[in-house]
Amino acid sequence: MHEITSTLTGPTVAESLATIAAEQARVIRRLIDGPNTTPDAEFEAAVARLQTARRIFVMGAGRSGLALRMTAMRLMHLGLDVHVVGEVTTPAIAASDVLLVASGSGMTRAVVGAAETAGQVGAAIVTITTTPGSRLAELSSTTIVLPAAQKEDHAGTISAQYSGSLFEQLVLTVGDAIFHTLWQASGATAEQLWPRHANLE
Amino acid sequence: MHEITSTLTGPTVAESLATIAAEQARVIRRLIDGPNTTPDAEFEAAVARLQTARRIFVMGAGRSGLALRMTAMRLMHLGLDVHVVGEVTTPAIAASDVLLVASGSGMTRAVVGAAETAGQVGAAIVTITTTPGSRLAELSSTTIVLPAAQKEDHAGTISAQYSGSLFEQLVLTVGDAIFHTLWQASGATAEQLWPRHANLE
Amino acid sequence: MHEITSTLTGPTVAESLATIAAEQARVIRRLIDGPNTTPDAEFEAAVARLQTARRIFVMGAGRSGLALRMTAMRLMHLGLDVHVVGEVTTPAIAASDVLLVASGSGMTRAVVGAAETAGQVGAAIVTITTTPGSRLAELSSTTIVLPAAQKEDHAGTISAQYSGSLFEQLVLTVGDAIFHTLWQASGATAEQLWPRHANLE
Amino acid sequence: MHEITSTLTGPTVAESLATIAAEQARVIRRLIDGPNTTPDAEFEAAVARLQTARRIFVMGAGRSGLALRMTAMRLMHLGLDVHVVGEVTTPAIAASDVLLVASGSGMTRAVVGAAETAGQVGAAIVTITTTPGSRLAELSSTTIVLPAAQKEDHAGTISAQYSGSLFEQLVLTVGDAIFHTLWQASGATAEQLWPRHANLE
Repeated sequence: MHEITSTLTGPTVAESLATIAAEQARVIRRLIDGPNTTPDAEFEAAVARLQTARRIFVMGAGRSGLALRMTAMRLMHLGLDVHVVGEVTTPAIAASDVLLVASGSGMTRAVVGAAETAGQVGAAIVTITTTPGSRLAELSSTTIVLPAAQKEDHAGTISAQYSGSLFEQLVLTVGDAIFHTLWQASGATAEQLWPRHANLE
Repeated sequence: MHEITSTLTGPTVAESLATIAAEQARVIRRLIDGPNTTPDAEFEAAVARLQTARRIFVMGAGRSGLALRMTAMRLMHLGLDVHVVGEVTTPAIAASDVLLVASGSGMTRAVVGAAETAGQVGAAIVTITTTPGSRLAELSSTTIVLPAAQKEDHAGTISAQYSGSLFEQLVLTVGDAIFHTLWQASGATAEQLWPRHANLE
Repeated sequence: MHEITSTLTGPTVAESLATIAAEQARVIRRLIDGPNTTPDAEFEAAVARLQTARRIFVMGAGRSGLALRMTAMRLMHLGLDVHVVGEVTTPAIAASDVLLVASGSGMTRAVVGAAETAGQVGAAIVTITTTPGSRLAELSSTTIVLPAAQKEDHAGTISAQYSGSLFEQLVLTVGDAIFHTLWQASGATAEQLWPRHANLE
Repeated sequence: MHEITSTLTGPTVAESLATIAAEQARVIRRLIDGPNTTPDAEFEAAVARLQTARRIFVMGAGRSGLALRMTAMRLMHLGLDVHVVGEVTTPAIAASDVLLVASGSGMTRAVVGAAETAGQVGAAIVTITTTPGSRLAELSSTTIVLPAAQKEDHAGTISAQYSGSLFEQLVLTVGDAIFHTLWQASGATAEQLWPRHANLE
């Protein structure tokens, strides 16, 4: 085994964990207690749209897209018909479908383009963003606004973390909260969801 | 636009957020303050191994794998040579490389198989798991143990969330804490990392 | 623009194309005219199974898997319910489903494992391979045998190409021939398939 | 096992194979013997660019992208530094890099956008297309023109196959011919390439 020589200066992992946890807690407290960037009605509208969608399509660039894929997997476990934009077998979106997207800036070119197409065919758009006035928010049926930093906020005034990390962490947490609400509303037990997990890997 | 009729019972999204945030906070507090499942020395060993690796390979099944991909992207932004197992251009692992894996149970067949191969060629293995005594932990050079629920803990004694959700959320947070520590140790500014972001999408 | 200095020896691209085309033609001629490694009845059984499947799952390692993904996309265009094993939203396979796999050796560990699971739940298995007596062929409901080289036939007695290239090229051609037959049998025009192409990228 | 009732009309798989093989052979004959849509000098320029590139990035939409991924895997086996655009760990392209793309129409929006970016940073662009006068061809350092059908040639005058299938099959064959030429020029044996195959799956 090769020898390991640490050349660390700066925070330990435990200190970094404390920093990140404090940032996440601050955003979540604002989402719950206010001053609210996302009113409860908007959250419940997102849930209702996903619950009644014929099919759900998820899309995001980079790490936001990976966080949404984690949510997509859970929605599939719930028995919903879910597709990840860009995957091989993803069909064309149509009316009665929902496009679920995440973009901190609300300006990611490919995501805005997809939202425009989705809007043209009559699909609903549910957006997670930090930017309520963005082009993406304008196109959206339902907008969840997270008070987190944007990718190019290099000054670190909202978050000490690199780029959009705080936003991306919250996309996962909010996605999982939406799933948890949908799951509890479904009345299904964990044992009933389990057989839907992929069995061929 | 189709009409939306909510048929919700159970928690609102804000209530689900509060549940999830409390679970995450409890695990992180134990990681920081103890009783520690992962001593500081183990965290710093993980950081040192990634810092000195010739190349880093990441692997996990399902949502754990997606969370590790988020970490992999950040490690690439830091200038490290990173590969996701299973992607088209991922080469063979060799000595001086590090395999970074996540598996709640420590028994995921494909992950254990990869760790066995990595060990045979002399690569180091850094594992994130909930299960210190597992086969995967035995194979590992460095093990980060998270006091979170396992996938098949359907009784919900550790987490009210479905399956391994709490573990998977923490894989992301711990991965981002490791990145944050590596980044701060590197002395690079955000502006210096930014040009490494993919420019062709 | 950087200067380009070729240091080629060996065949030109045109010469390599001629070599590859001759190898492909020889295999296809044997599939059509005999001595047949795959009788017509076996081809038609594969078509019938895909046509009547509730859902189709495709799986292959490396380049074989990429070739099958190309086929999977076409089957989706035909309106079939298709999933790629390993993708985020792929559900569990069940009876009435078909698993379509490709493995030159018939021994690829993950593919054989998937076929065993598929067989246990009562799904049909359609296999493309070079090896009729393999474990994978034994598990299969329908086996298409291609008289092409295997991956580790380094001596180049069947193909001058590297590793399983000839087999992988034929997986694509045979997959597209099966699609062409299914499409013509469906009576649909190209214009009727077109709207199913992904519209969000 | 469920019963299978075939409802086929139209060509058998063997007949479809014969149709496809004849179409492929006709295009390859024109590439080799003329009237040439791609002169030998252009093929050899593509080889030289890939041979001398610092890093190679591949990109294509849908099935063209999957065919290029198959080529990318082989280039990695040859020891080249290869990345697939859109994958998690793919870095930013820069001067001395080569972007290898495929688009039948030469108008695929995302591919043209990537080529524009690549050109701006001084990277070379190698294009496989059916359309010599397209925007993509204009941007390219080296253009390989295949006399195959375009996606929306629904009339079937060039190919009886659906959409861009013939083009996509030839992207694979031409990519493999370029690899074969690079491999033979390298002087490496199959045994020398073999250890580069992924060992963690």
